[in-house]
Amino acid sequence: MTAILVLHGPNLNLLGQREPGVYGTTTLAEVDAAIRTHAASRGVRVECRQSNHEGVLVDAIQGAASEGFAAIVINPGALTHYSYALRDAIAGVSLPAVEVHLSNVHGREPFRHRSVTAGACRGQIAGFGVHSYLLGVEAALACLARG
Amino acid sequence: MTAILVLHGPNLNLLGQREPGVYGTTTLAEVDAAIRTHAASRGVRVECRQSNHEGVLVDAIQGAASEGFAAIVINPGALTHYSYALRDAIAGVSLPAVEVHLSNVHGREPFRHRSVTAGACRGQIAGFGVHSYLLGVEAALACLARG
Amino acid sequence: MTAILVLHGPNLNLLGQREPGVYGTTTLAEVDAAIRTHAASRGVRVECRQSNHEGVLVDAIQGAASEGFAAIVINPGALTHYSYALRDAIAGVSLPAVEVHLSNVHGREPFRHRSVTAGACRGQIAGFGVHSYLLGVEAALACLARG
Amino acid sequence: MTAILVLHGPNLNLLGQREPGVYGTTTLAEVDAAIRTHAASRGVRVECRQSNHEGVLVDAIQGAASEGFAAIVINPGALTHYSYALRDAIAGVSLPAVEVHLSNVHGREPFRHRSVTAGACRGQIAGFGVHSYLLGVEAALACLARG
Amino acid sequence: MTAILVLHGPNLNLLGQREPGVYGTTTLAEVDAAIRTHAASRGVRVECRQSNHEGVLVDAIQGAASEGFAAIVINPGALTHYSYALRDAIAGVSLPAVEVHLSNVHGREPFRHRSVTAGACRGQIAGFGVHSYLLGVEAALACLARG
Amino acid sequence: MTAILVLHGPNLNLLGQREPGVYGTTTLAEVDAAIRTHAASRGVRVECRQSNHEGVLVDAIQGAASEGFAAIVINPGALTHYSYALRDAIAGVSLPAVEVHLSNVHGREPFRHRSVTAGACRGQIAGFGVHSYLLGVEAALACLARG
Amino acid sequence: MTAILVLHGPNLNLLGQREPGVYGTTTLAEVDAAIRTHAASRGVRVECRQSNHEGVLVDAIQGAASEGFAAIVINPGALTHYSYALRDAIAGVSLPAVEVHLSNVHGREPFRHRSVTAGACRGQIAGFGVHSYLLGVEAALACLARG
Amino acid sequence: MTAILVLHGPNLNLLGQREPGVYGTTTLAEVDAAIRTHAASRGVRVECRQSNHEGVLVDAIQGAASEGFAAIVINPGALTHYSYALRDAIAGVSLPAVEVHLSNVHGREPFRHRSVTAGACRGQIAGFGVHSYLLGVEAALACLARG
Amino acid sequence: MTAILVLHGPNLNLLGQREPGVYGTTTLAEVDAAIRTHAASRGVRVECRQSNHEGVLVDAIQGAASEGFAAIVINPGALTHYSYALRDAIAGVSLPAVEVHLSNVHGREPFRHRSVTAGACRGQIAGFGVHSYLLGVEAALACLARG
Amino acid sequence: MTAILVLHGPNLNLLGQREPGVYGTTTLAEVDAAIRTHAASRGVRVECRQSNHEGVLVDAIQGAASEGFAAIVINPGALTHYSYALRDAIAGVSLPAVEVHLSNVHGREPFRHRSVTAGACRGQIAGFGVHSYLLGVEAALACLARG
Amino acid sequence: MTAILVLHGPNLNLLGQREPGVYGTTTLAEVDAAIRTHAASRGVRVECRQSNHEGVLVDAIQGAASEGFAAIVINPGALTHYSYALRDAIAGVSLPAVEVHLSNVHGREPFRHRSVTAGACRGQIAGFGVHSYLLGVEAALACLARG
Amino acid sequence: MTAILVLHGPNLNLLGQREPGVYGTTTLAEVDAAIRTHAASRGVRVECRQSNHEGVLVDAIQGAASEGFAAIVINPGALTHYSYALRDAIAGVSLPAVEVHLSNVHGREPFRHRSVTAGACRGQIAGFGVHSYLLGVEAALACLARG
Repeated sequence: MTAILVLHGPNLNLLGQREPGVYGTTTLAEVDAAIRTHAASRGVRVECRQSNHEGVLVDAIQGAASEGFAAIVINPGALTHYSYALRDAIAGVSLPAVEVHLSNVHGREPFRHRSVTAGACRGQIAGFGVHSYLLGVEAALACLARG
Repeated sequence: MTAILVLHGPNLNLLGQREPGVYGTTTLAEVDAAIRTHAASRGVRVECRQSNHEGVLVDAIQGAASEGFAAIVINPGALTHYSYALRDAIAGVSLPAVEVHLSNVHGREPFRHRSVTAGACRGQIAGFGVHSYLLGVEAALACLARG
Repeated sequence: MTAILVLHGPNLNLLGQREPGVYGTTTLAEVDAAIRTHAASRGVRVECRQSNHEGVLVDAIQGAASEGFAAIVINPGALTHYSYALRDAIAGVSLPAVEVHLSNVHGREPFRHRSVTAGACRGQIAGFGVHSYLLGVEAALACLARG
Repeated sequence: MTAILVLHGPNLNLLGQREPGVYGTTTLAEVDAAIRTHAASRGVRVECRQSNHEGVLVDAIQGAASEGFAAIVINPGALTHYSYALRDAIAGVSLPAVEVHLSNVHGREPFRHRSVTAGACRGQIAGFGVHSYLLGVEAALACLARG
Repeated sequence: MTAILVLHGPNLNLLGQREPGVYGTTTLAEVDAAIRTHAASRGVRVECRQSNHEGVLVDAIQGAASEGFAAIVINPGALTHYSYALRDAIAGVSLPAVEVHLSNVHGREPFRHRSVTAGACRGQIAGFGVHSYLLGVEAALACLARG
Repeated sequence: MTAILVLHGPNLNLLGQREPGVYGTTTLAEVDAAIRTHAASRGVRVECRQSNHEGVLVDAIQGAASEGFAAIVINPGALTHYSYALRDAIAGVSLPAVEVHLSNVHGREPFRHRSVTAGACRGQIAGFGVHSYLLGVEAALACLARG
Repeated sequence: MTAILVLHGPNLNLLGQREPGVYGTTTLAEVDAAIRTHAASRGVRVECRQSNHEGVLVDAIQGAASEGFAAIVINPGALTHYSYALRDAIAGVSLPAVEVHLSNVHGREPFRHRSVTAGACRGQIAGFGVHSYLLGVEAALACLARG
Repeated sequence: MTAILVLHGPNLNLLGQREPGVYGTTTLAEVDAAIRTHAASRGVRVECRQSNHEGVLVDAIQGAASEGFAAIVINPGALTHYSYALRDAIAGVSLPAVEVHLSNVHGREPFRHRSVTAGACRGQIAGFGVHSYLLGVEAALACLARG
Repeated sequence: MTAILVLHGPNLNLLGQREPGVYGTTTLAEVDAAIRTHAASRGVRVECRQSNHEGVLVDAIQGAASEGFAAIVINPGALTHYSYALRDAIAGVSLPAVEVHLSNVHGREPFRHRSVTAGACRGQIAGFGVHSYLLGVEAALACLARG
Repeated sequence: MTAILVLHGPNLNLLGQREPGVYGTTTLAEVDAAIRTHAASRGVRVECRQSNHEGVLVDAIQGAASEGFAAIVINPGALTHYSYALRDAIAGVSLPAVEVHLSNVHGREPFRHRSVTAGACRGQIAGFGVHSYLLGVEAALACLARG
Repeated sequence: MTAILVLHGPNLNLLGQREPGVYGTTTLAEVDAAIRTHAASRGVRVECRQSNHEGVLVDAIQGAASEGFAAIVINPGALTHYSYALRDAIAGVSLPAVEVHLSNVHGREPFRHRSVTAGACRGQIAGFGVHSYLLGVEAALACLARG
Repeated sequence: MTAILVLHGPNLNLLGQREPGVYGTTTLAEVDAAIRTHAASRGVRVECRQSNHEGVLVDAIQGAASEGFAAIVINPGALTHYSYALRDAIAGVSLPAVEVHLSNVHGREPFRHRSVTAGACRGQIAGFGVHSYLLGVEAALACLARG
């Protein structure tokens, strides 16, 4: 069974309480449940992890293949905008990665327009709330299908 | 039956012959067929149009609601990077719009990193080839479901 | 009888429905009626045209003199911010042109602060809603009086 | 009787002798006479003041309402390009203000393209010589009529 | 008895009526009273002055020592962002100066993020409303204690 | 017989009347006649088209090969400086393209120094008036000879 | 009893030995003692923590409320200048936060002038050595008093 | 007898006490005496004035000709770097003006490298302490001799 | 026996598998062995550590002296380009540090040209593959010899 | 017989061996032969010189007229991008100059897009290999014919 | 007898024929004669040299002291704007150097506003034609007198 | 016997007397002796040349292979920061080149952070005084060993 690693970056554990006008009231547990439900319907296994530590995320990306994951769906949170270490980790492994964002970063503060990580991913999906993750799973599957 | 307008901007009619290393060898007709097939499977009607004319795209966006469309999926092509007119058109109508790109614009030439139109859309999906459009249809449906 | 060509750029046909918080609820037809009424009171004939097509606006500017117009009042809409073609058209004809904007572009998003077209006009009027056009007609008459 | 305060910033007292190629040969006294004549024809009272001192202009803006003025027409001269103090004064009072310029600042040296004050005004009128002031009075009246 | 000079820059005399959403409804007289009360509790004498004139503020800074003041607490208002003259005045006298701001300038418009004067002060305190001044007095006393 | 498509962008139909100090008094018809005469002397057929519409130029570039043209000589006019759509069209077809300009864009206003289209052409020729086109035809022939 | 969490970012544990010309010879333990003494005099409890790990600081900010803290005083050290993750953590919790710096960052190297975290805090205090922390506690109390 | 107006801008009255490492220990009175002595030896009359007020300097420049001065030597102090009002005043009068600086502004902080006023003067002299003024008087005489 | 601490930043543990075109096929274990061999030949002891965690690297730098190391050789990986925390750690300890890079960062993507950490080191060595580390050990010994 | 001076800047003597993927395998001697052959067919004399020394090129430009040359064709090599001395030399002599480049500088590294010398020439030709020089000779003749 | 070395940079040998509207009709020989006459009247010996070669100027600066010169007056011509080698030469010798320019570089094209060499000189004099050199000699003498 | 060409750029002949605080008191002759001694110990021949002339350095790089050198160690001095001609020379020859600097350019003035030449070299070594050259010889040997 294909397995996908879903990574949530810093502060995404605050979902549901952090700036609900921007991020909505759904909690991260609910997001993860929605992802798992969607993945199940597609016959895929997902594992969701969150960390506020850049290094933990880099470790997870590096170890994903040996843990049996075939692809990565990652919302790097604020690390999106400056973590070249995350970028190099994604570029350094052979698994396809898909960057997702809950909010439409292109329509927010200027510093959020720039992603230093997206260029190392296969693509980026932003702006559709929880659906960004579900579309991210779909996109990861499409990447795997393309080989 | 929910109807979605799919708009292709300048030079997307060259698909399959233009820089196949970047854009693949699938033609626009094949892309449109794939979109229609996917939409049918979701019980949605799509109509696909391509134009090299900014004004024609602006006209289409403005007229979409009165033509009965509920949402727009748009790949603005190179207009993505400078057409504030397209941006204002998208911002000026009440239909949700989803921006899609075949290639991962975030990993290409610097001028392609910037989208002046994405901020007026609900979100952006880039980097998954033909699948970007299919994910775009999914995203549009999610936007409609959210209201 | 002196004749003035009034040109509306992209998306101004959406007036009354597009971002009413910024642009008000007056429609373009009502704006044109107000301009005509004002012009009549000044003994001037105006003709109002709108287009979402940059090329159509360039054509109109080029043809204005041979159509018998003595001056141009133009709201280039979003083209204000990038259309060097419009700028060159205005600079290339001998008619005086006045740039007008409904909203105070100087107090909005940074990209709206810059006009690439205003430098080729005799001047710019921005921020007074429908009155910007009426003042534009007055300004055009003043330019004609100055010779 | 509605009263409007007209403020002229630094160096406008040199009008008629300063760079006549740019600013013409009309003196400030003649400009003020033209403004008064125009205002009288509209049933409005104007008072015109000039100062080379930023602080005097800030004081005047702050005191305008208690002196009985209903609106301000201001040509900040070179202060346009750097006086955030003037900007804050205009933003800090409830009277509508209209920024005017004799020359078309948008077609001159780059530093003159930027106005730090216009965003705090209702709008800006530039490029029509003495007529910029008369149009400014009209614009102020329109602002008052709109409430 | 140690004496501290408190200087308020342009438009701070509008406090209570200017943008109350940002600056609150307390008037400058009330601010000065609060500063005096706090200073008295600390056994310090303060004198508060406001001016809309950059030159008056420069004069005051230069004369502070000979007037018997031991330190300066200054809110330069909008001059913060461009007055190198104020900066040089502060750098040119031997008294310690503390820059204070009512609002959190770091979270407002980009032009307010930059202070050309703070580098010449001992430090900056911003964002705590009237309390910024009281903290400023405390900071000035700490500077004096450090020598 | 080898055929070359010559494309003139926006406002080039104004030649002879637009800023003659910069562009001379030769009309576009005279330019086209000179190109045709030169081409005939080289045994080549040329067809000259002008449009103020970006989309029309993109269409023409896309259709050039199927119309039997072997190369393109294009003066994009003001579109040179912002039309990524034109750039992508040139990059998307297999015909060699040569960019030409009447005036020396490198010695004019800063915005004219930058060409977003030249990088997609084989090369650029600028500054020699009508001769820029004749040299452009020569350059196109050289490109064809090189294969 | 009101409790305040004091957070010290990377390298602040080097205090007293790191660049004493800039930061003085007081150690972090002495700083913490001074903060505790001051807090006690104000009837407040403080807890001081230092970490060189961005993620640990983010975790601490997120957990502060559930640990019973009412406010945060934070010196993010060098993270001030690039950690959008810290910024989002501060913005994502409801506790008021006050940013403090020992040195006057506004008068040091240009990269230290910019704080990406201060905009998410209630305010910033910089330049007063150990007193910056004491003033920070005062400021936090003022924020709590304002509600 | 030829008369030259010497203007000192903000903070130059602090000479001798302000940053003596940069500006030396000579007082402004001593500078003025040196200028007068030098001018006398050249058969010229000088009058020296200092002001911390931009407006006073603008007034002085505007009135210089009617006061009988033939040329201006001005050290605008910190106003050099932002006062477009001073620049316009210098450009607006017919007297030749020479900008002087005590220190070598080109070798100090970056913001001091830029002079917005020097372009409106005949030239600039910087870096020679009191001698900058004496050379400035010489330069003014040379300008007068050239006509 | 002199001891040198060798630190490898994020993703260097991927050596041999990450972008071998850029970084070669040597693994980190092999790199470390080469460093140890070289150090032994020079009579020096080295200890090599790798971490994907910025904080761990900061901790290691801070603790190096008390662990008995005399110098540091560090390849900060992607942290080179944004970690001011690492920079401050290096600047805050008294041990000499040498920055090394496997690839020639000066000839790669623009973001890799800038090192925020090198200025706090004694120097930088980049571009010589594994040899960069050996040269780094040599450089560290030279720094120690110079005192 | 009209004579044209052809100048080759730094490193053009490496032609044929330097980056043949960019510059081809033709040697400079072969280029010069091609230029001479072409010139002979046009009844013109050319003299070709190469130098790696900016000063030698400046000397040659200054002396060209007195050596009997009527025009200059120059490929400044890398000096194109920074040699204001070369620019001033070209601007300082009355001979028409034509700038040529073998490769399409507009499609290469960003630093090659900018020419500081082209603005002082009559025009620029780039991208056609050896043909750039032949077209340059033609362009020079056209300039001479225009007078 | 004190000796001063006067250095003229690239293209100054064209004086009198190069852009006489900017530089006048005086030749370099005449300039040198004027400098010598002035120097003689001051009891100083001058030697004037011109070179179009950066390296020759660097050599001359390095050798000036051993040739017996006490100071340098240098007009670096266009090298002013980019020659860090010249800057380092001036900074590397102990002789005082004075930078002079014939024209007012501060009022010309933007690239001429920046001097990379002036910061290494004692000061700069610009805008007074031949007199800039005479004032430069005076300034050099003042530097020598100051020691 | 392997031979390495060591090139010193402008002003390096001043070593020992130029800014000894930055560059030390060792003379260039002593540096060259140290390089020769080190090379001898490695069984390599070195030849050291210094020039203040960019063109001489370009000539030397071009001729190095035919003179029998196998590699180049170059300290371009100030040319590092602007000489694209030097860059193209290094890129144009097949010998490996190593860039060295005595001082840590990354920690000095901003203009010294940028090297336009390092990208064309195999790598860069900076900050270790005379040892930078010795390490440069080692690095060159490593490059030769790698082939």
